[in-house]
Amino acid sequence: MGDTKISVLGLGAMGSALARAWLVAGYEVTVWNRTVSRAELLAAEGAKVAVTAREAVAVGDLVVVCLLDDVSVGEVLDGAELGGKDLVNVTTGVPGEARERAEWAVGRGARYLDGGIMAVPPMIGVQGSGAYVFYSGSSELFAAWGDVLAVPAAIRFVGEDPGLAALYDVALLSAMTGMFAGVSHAFALMRRTQVAPEGFAALLVEWLTGMAPYANGVAAQLETGDYTLGVTSNLAMMVEANGTLLRTAEEQGVSPELISPFMALMERRLADGHGDEGTTGVIDLLLR
Amino acid sequence: MGDTKISVLGLGAMGSALARAWLVAGYEVTVWNRTVSRAELLAAEGAKVAVTAREAVAVGDLVVVCLLDDVSVGEVLDGAELGGKDLVNVTTGVPGEARERAEWAVGRGARYLDGGIMAVPPMIGVQGSGAYVFYSGSSELFAAWGDVLAVPAAIRFVGEDPGLAALYDVALLSAMTGMFAGVSHAFALMRRTQVAPEGFAALLVEWLTGMAPYANGVAAQLETGDYTLGVTSNLAMMVEANGTLLRTAEEQGVSPELISPFMALMERRLADGHGDEGTTGVIDLLLR
Repeated sequence: MGDTKISVLGLGAMGSALARAWLVAGYEVTVWNRTVSRAELLAAEGAKVAVTAREAVAVGDLVVVCLLDDVSVGEVLDGAELGGKDLVNVTTGVPGEARERAEWAVGRGARYLDGGIMAVPPMIGVQGSGAYVFYSGSSELFAAWGDVLAVPAAIRFVGEDPGLAALYDVALLSAMTGMFAGVSHAFALMRRTQVAPEGFAALLVEWLTGMAPYANGVAAQLETGDYTLGVTSNLAMMVEANGTLLRTAEEQGVSPELISPFMALMERRLADGHGDEGTTGVIDLLLR
Repeated sequence: MGDTKISVLGLGAMGSALARAWLVAGYEVTVWNRTVSRAELLAAEGAKVAVTAREAVAVGDLVVVCLLDDVSVGEVLDGAELGGKDLVNVTTGVPGEARERAEWAVGRGARYLDGGIMAVPPMIGVQGSGAYVFYSGSSELFAAWGDVLAVPAAIRFVGEDPGLAALYDVALLSAMTGMFAGVSHAFALMRRTQVAPEGFAALLVEWLTGMAPYANGVAAQLETGDYTLGVTSNLAMMVEANGTLLRTAEEQGVSPELISPFMALMERRLADGHGDEGTTGVIDLLLR
């Protein structure tokens, strides 16, 4: 590790956590941040501090960028010498930005890997935290630096298309957003009862954990194109049940706005004659 | 079991599965259904067939009702002698219907228990299927018949208020609806890529399983009233991330309609000055 030089540009909570994980593991880490005070905190833990982004890039074999957004990446790396560098960009962004940034970096002589971090900063560098990072782009870079990249969090390479890491990242976050919306609605339904939230939460966690594998069934239906495959509760039954869900929300004085859009699409699909399917057809209705 | 007489009224897929589970366990089961052909199927498996609902009620010590809806329950039990009977109603309905039906039954001299079945029919009577039933209402009835009720599926008594079983049932189904909406959006995002649905589903299941315990944190915040308790990713950060989710949906040609309502409420809560909280405040915005 002694001769492996890692540079980390951008010391927000996530960038700092990454730099710290490599420092703790014994790597030589150079840091840069627009506001120098954050760099000084890491200097106290053994990091070298670069005065300019250009300098940070120059000293690193592996250059890790964790900035506010893609525009910041362009600004910060503008003027840096990227030829021969291995650039890993874990800045949050959309797939299209990752693809353009990859082209931009490769055009300047760098190898490029994009990362989507599936963790909050306190999970970084913590064994068993479940933190991991999706990577996409240069498989050569990934092969060369896999051991180092695996220090802060587990690693998952998802393809040569540089946009895939961001896409996987956003897709999982979107699914979580839906789950949290459902959880919020469920708690709202119980809010005017004497039921203790913690006891209810335990049932909710158990139930959602048990139902999450529904996604495997959806995948099998998408792969075969047979949306009735393995269906035990079909759309006709589910739309019927939706009526009970909506009437209960009404009784409990809870707005149905978080669950009704999905119900509306289920009804559209049912009206189109797909009552024997599950909910997979809703996916087609979302595509423009 | 020989002298325990169970009557099952309503032989849809669920009622038939319940009757079958008790038959297999050796109980004397009398069945009734408006359409007699379904009863004849069970007769071949050992059930006695009642010609009228009134007769089915008369012969049963435990009378289990599993009909289309609460209106059907009223119609079917109209004219039956309920005095001294133990009535268990697992017909799908809203909490208010369960409460009124309980009052109605008690007024006719019966003990009443309402049930919300957390399973599809193929899971009934199958050891280890994870099927269970929420029960609420008469704790005396539940204590007297718990062993029998536990034959088709695991049992969970949630309170004397007869509406609670339906409320727990609907709340969990609502949370699941949100999760399925999120899952649908996630698959839609991947639909125009070469990514195999089954591999993606495995990541999705793992991710949602890992994130489901978020509900425990929400509960702790609701109980303390401190919505910043234990927050690692706050509303300000999440709203920022929502922008990336929406731009990605736009790029992939996916309508955001399933996840945007939750985002809108997060933004409202943020605008109200709660950027340091998690999403728990959204629950308050849903209450009318």
